[in-house]
Parts: sequence; C-alpha cells; structure tokens
Amino acid sequence: MVHPGSPEAEAAREQAEYRKVLGAELDGFLAEQQLVLQDVSMESLPLLDAVSSLAQGGKRLRALLNYWGWRGAGGAELGAPAVRSGVALELFQSAALIHDDIIDRSDTRRGGPSVHRRFSATHSQAAWHLDGTHFGSSAAILAGDLCLSLSEEMFSAVGAQAAHGTGARRIFNRMRTEVMAGQYLDILEEVVGPTHEPERAVVRARNILRYKSAKYTTEHPLTLGGALAGASAELLDWYSRFALPLGEAFQLRDDVLGVFGDPEQTGKPAGDDLREGKRTVLVAYALTFGGPSARDAMAEGLGRADLDDDGVAALRGLIQESGALAATETLIEGHTQAAFDALEQLPVDDVTRAALSALAHAAVNRSA
Amino acid sequence: MVHPGSPEAEAAREQAEYRKVLGAELDGFLAEQQLVLQDVSMESLPLLDAVSSLAQGGKRLRALLNYWGWRGAGGAELGAPAVRSGVALELFQSAALIHDDIIDRSDTRRGGPSVHRRFSATHSQAAWHLDGTHFGSSAAILAGDLCLSLSEEMFSAVGAQAAHGTGARRIFNRMRTEVMAGQYLDILEEVVGPTHEPERAVVRARNILRYKSAKYTTEHPLTLGGALAGASAELLDWYSRFALPLGEAFQLRDDVLGVFGDPEQTGKPAGDDLREGKRTVLVAYALTFGGPSARDAMAEGLGRADLDDDGVAALRGLIQESGALAATETLIEGHTQAAFDALEQLPVDDVTRAALSALAHAAVNRSA
Repeated sequence: MVHPGSPEAEAAREQAEYRKVLGAELDGFLAEQQLVLQDVSMESLPLLDAVSSLAQGGKRLRALLNYWGWRGAGGAELGAPAVRSGVALELFQSAALIHDDIIDRSDTRRGGPSVHRRFSATHSQAAWHLDGTHFGSSAAILAGDLCLSLSEEMFSAVGAQAAHGTGARRIFNRMRTEVMAGQYLDILEEVVGPTHEPERAVVRARNILRYKSAKYTTEHPLTLGGALAGASAELLDWYSRFALPLGEAFQLRDDVLGVFGDPEQTGKPAGDDLREGKRTVLVAYALTFGGPSARDAMAEGLGRADLDDDGVAALRGLIQESGALAATETLIEGHTQAAFDALEQLPVDDVTRAALSALAHAAVNRSA
Repeated sequence: MVHPGSPEAEAAREQAEYRKVLGAELDGFLAEQQLVLQDVSMESLPLLDAVSSLAQGGKRLRALLNYWGWRGAGGAELGAPAVRSGVALELFQSAALIHDDIIDRSDTRRGGPSVHRRFSATHSQAAWHLDGTHFGSSAAILAGDLCLSLSEEMFSAVGAQAAHGTGARRIFNRMRTEVMAGQYLDILEEVVGPTHEPERAVVRARNILRYKSAKYTTEHPLTLGGALAGASAELLDWYSRFALPLGEAFQLRDDVLGVFGDPEQTGKPAGDDLREGKRTVLVAYALTFGGPSARDAMAEGLGRADLDDDGVAALRGLIQESGALAATETLIEGHTQAAFDALEQLPVDDVTRAALSALAHAAVNRSA
C-alpha cells in the first residue's frame, strides 16, 4: 500500500507529471520535424512516422532514471534539461532498436511489426517494384539515422548544461560509442561461433551485456541526469554502484525471458532469441557447463531461423539441465542484491529513493 | 599560371595549411576514440578502423567550402571552429557513404571495397559462421552509426559558435534531416518504378538531387562556415545563390559519370549506376523523352544487378539518343553559369573568391 503523502506517493505523483511533460516535449519536437520533412516532400513523411510511432511507445525507463538522477542531485521539479535529455535518451533508444531489429532480423517490436518489416509491408501492399525486403531494410537504416540525429539535436537543445566540456556531454558521447562497440561485439560473437574459446564465453557475454545494454539502459541515464544537475563525483559514483548492477540484472532477466518467456506477455514468439542465435550469458553458461554433446547441439540449433517448436524445446531443455538457467538466476540475484544495497546507502532524498526503488523493482521483477 | 602573391597563390597556400590542420584534428580525434573502444574490448577496434580508413580519404570538398565560408565572413585564418566543423562535415559524409553503400549494394568506394564488403571479406577470410553478407551489412550499419555519432560529437566540440540556438547549429540540424529525407525519396523512387507519373519524373529527380546531395555537398557547408563566423543574412543568401547551383551541377556531373564515365578514372565499374537502378535526372529525362519503347527498355534494364556490358551499352544508347544526355549537359551548363555569376558578385575578399573559384572549377570540370 502506498500512503498519501508518503515518499512513494509523492514519487508516483511527480513521475506521472514528468511523463506528461516528456510526452508533450517529444510530440512538439516531432511536429517541428514534420515541417522540415514536408518542405522536402510530403512523400518523405513515412520516414518520420516510423520514428514517431516507435518513439511514442516503450516503458520510458531511461527517461525516468535520467529524471530521478537529476532530482536526486538537486535539479528542479520538471526541470527543462531533464525533460529534454529524457526525450534525447528515448530517441537514442528508438534509433538503436530500429537498427538492432534489422541486424537481428526481428519481425516484431513492442507487439507490432518492426520498422523494416513495416516498410516492406508497405512495399508489398502497394505492389512496388524490386526487392521489398531490401527496401524495408534500407528505409529502416534511414529511419534509424534520422532518429539518431534527432536524439542528438534534442540533447544539444538542453543548452549550457549539456554543452561541450560538461560532464553530461561526456556521458552522452561515451554512451553512444560504447553501445555501438558493444553491438559490434555482439554480432561478432555470433559469427565466430559457439566453439570459439568456450572457456571465455561467459566473460565475453557479460562484457557485451554491460556495454551493449546495461550501461545505457540504467547507468548512463541516471548519471547523465545527475551530471546535468551538477552532481558531485561522489554522488555519480553512488549512482553507478546502484545502476550498473541493476542494468545487468535487467538485461539478464530479458535474456531469460527471450528463451523461457510467455509469448503472450513478451509480445515476441517463443524462443525467438534462440532462432536469432543471440549469444547471451544464458547461452554462454550452457556452452560452458554443457559438455561436448550439449555444445554440439547448441551449435547446431542456435541461429537457425527455421528452428521449430521441438527444436526450441530441446535447446531450452539443454539450457535448463546444464545448470545455465540456475547460474543466470544466481547472477540476477547477486546483481539485484548489489543494486538494492547501494540504493539503501544512496545519498539522496526519500522521494528520489522511493522512485528509484519502484523503478528497480519493475526492472528486475517482470514477465515482459 | 598562378603568380606568387596573387589571390590564387595565397588561397592555395592557406588551403594547404588548412588541410594539414584538418587532418591532424581528425587523427587526434580518432586516436581519442580508439581509447574509448579499447576500454570496451580490443575486439571492437575494427569498427573504428572502418570509419578511420574511409574518413581519411576523399576530396574534402565539404570541409574546404566550410572553411572558405568561414573566411569569407571574416573568420580567423585556421580558426578552430572551422577546423572542427570541417572534421564534423567529413565524418557526416563518411557516415552517409557507409550506409548509402549498403542501400545501393555498392561493392566499391574510393577505389577500395565498401565498408560492408570489407566486413564480409573479413568474415569469409576467417571462415566464420552464419551469413557473411548479413554480417557485413550489420557491421556497416554499426560503423555508420558510430561515424554519425562522432560527426556530431565533433560538431558540438566547436563550442559556443555551434551551441543550441545558433545559426550554425540550425544549419547542421537541418542538413542532416534533409539528407535523410532526400535519401528516402531516392529509394522510394526506385521502387515505385519507372512508370510512376512519368510527367513528373524530372521534377522528382531534381528534388531528390537537391536534398540528397546538392545542399549538403556545397550549400550547407559554405553557409555553415559563414554562420560560425557570424555572417549576415545577406552574405548567407549570397553563399546559397552560389553554392546551391554549384552543388546541383556537381551532382549532375556525377550522374553523367556514373553512366558514361571511364572506370579507370571513376574507380567504379562502368554503368554501375544503371545496375543499381539509380533514378537520376539523366534517367528521368530519358524516361520523359524516350517514348514508350525506350521507356519499356529502361524499365526492363534499370536496377538489374546482372546487366551485362551489352545491356549497359544499350541503355547508354537510349539515354544519348533520347536527348537526355544533352538535356542534362544543358542543365549542368545553366547551373554552372548561375554559380559563377553569383561568385563574381559575392561580397567576399579576393583570396576567398579565388579559393571558391578553384573549388567550383574542380567540382564541375572533372572526370572522376
């Protein structure tokens, strides 16, 4: 129960306000961009529509962490820098998803078609010429590029607090480079194959998880918000001690859901991560623990787009029996514990702590 | 002959200095980025290598126009803002090329393999697993994303002159959105097919050329440099009157070379633009002038990756006989004339005018 007037109630109230302002800022920005595209040609608008429909969904985890990072460091309630940086983070996330879905050949995103599938569907409905799949990917590359540019345009619009030489700008720059490097390591891991240095598979998978996902999902947004409000180095360090393990637990949970989740709840077909050949920590553990025959079976089935339900069930069985699922759950528990331990000691006001606690619980206890 | 002490000689000397400083700034920036990627993993470095090797080539047309735009508006010799914005423009161009080559399925760039081909070659040399073509495209998507982010990081590093709310920032933002919208129109034009509203084909092709290419090749760099130095609205207007037709003439020449150019000089296979199905102004004229049978033949051959030398020669013949080549040359002449007329009246010093004149001549009189 949340009592009226409690830090929890106050945090929920303020967060709902922030969500509204964030949504309005995003809508206003996209409306301005629409005018720019219209000046080029009305026919270019579907490119922005693809960005808009994706950016208007999602849990807003990054924007919210950024907001409470700002508030915990003494930033003003609903302060404009935290609104704009929140929009920038959500647009960055959308850009990453658009390109990620091309790379992972994902057909769905947030319960609807992914951007490249959306464009290839338009192509086939209109009975256009040439290769519709290639058109879909090409249009999605451009939509992702536009979205990445808009993310940065919005981040620069924060103004002085995000100018060259500030801590916030350094975090934003580093975040982008690290995500792209992490994504590259991820696709590299898939192609070097499951038999490449299996003794280091878990180390590599954890490194990919950290850079491709954990840091930019939780740590960078929280520290970015803090830096915008002029947080001390000590506070930023505390933010990292809370948010990095939280992000790791969050992504590990995502990996477990990608293999064992209920499609009704995740909005993605069961076992899709296995068909895409994702080299998660879960899979790395299975390769490490599983012995030669399990390893061969994993190598054979992983990344096969035509893997049927029985094939998915067989791989799931291997992951479970090898102890990989249990090891991953242990890791999630350890990271979660570390995050909540740090949260208790975080030198922030009670409302911020209550807000971060609610976000952290939602991030690690979820089924979708 | 360029006489010592003449504006031409002075411009050449200063431009050579600028090139050196520009190269050093780019190298220093890439070296810093290397440290960021190394922190993630040594295995992520090929992503940056791909960016570096592409960004270190090229004619530097955009950086140089940006520099003379700055100088013509009273900016200091070798001023840091013009160096950094020059690097930002070159990185933006590299990012656009990396993604463009995936979209156009181009195997070569600047005489070497394109970035996606480079990664797929690494894949096949190392005998890695899964689909090497898909790995190549995926890695190149990420390399382009990294390059786009770095372009912006460098532009923000210009500092106060490029901060939110400045004219320079507005130009930079608009440039990116317009290029992406223009590229989308370009791929759309290919798939809607050669029979879509042929009476408007030339209008559409000229619009694509303007936004996808001309504005960001010449007009935006020149006005951006001017805006950084605080140019008046009147001077910026003069810059546009010179640079936009120059950019249009430049790209039209590029289109002619893409069909009629000597592969030895262009570094691209003969007729590659026809195999890629590029819907240039040249092709639009051929569709407009050619009559039904020529139109059918164009529709049949354009965009066929397996088009052989005879097929290329046949399409070339149609383009020439229909009067499309002559019409395009007339257009190039008109734009070139307009650009040089404006250059004569440009309210800038003699050294800047001499420099712009040399760049303009190089842009329109070329065989590669």
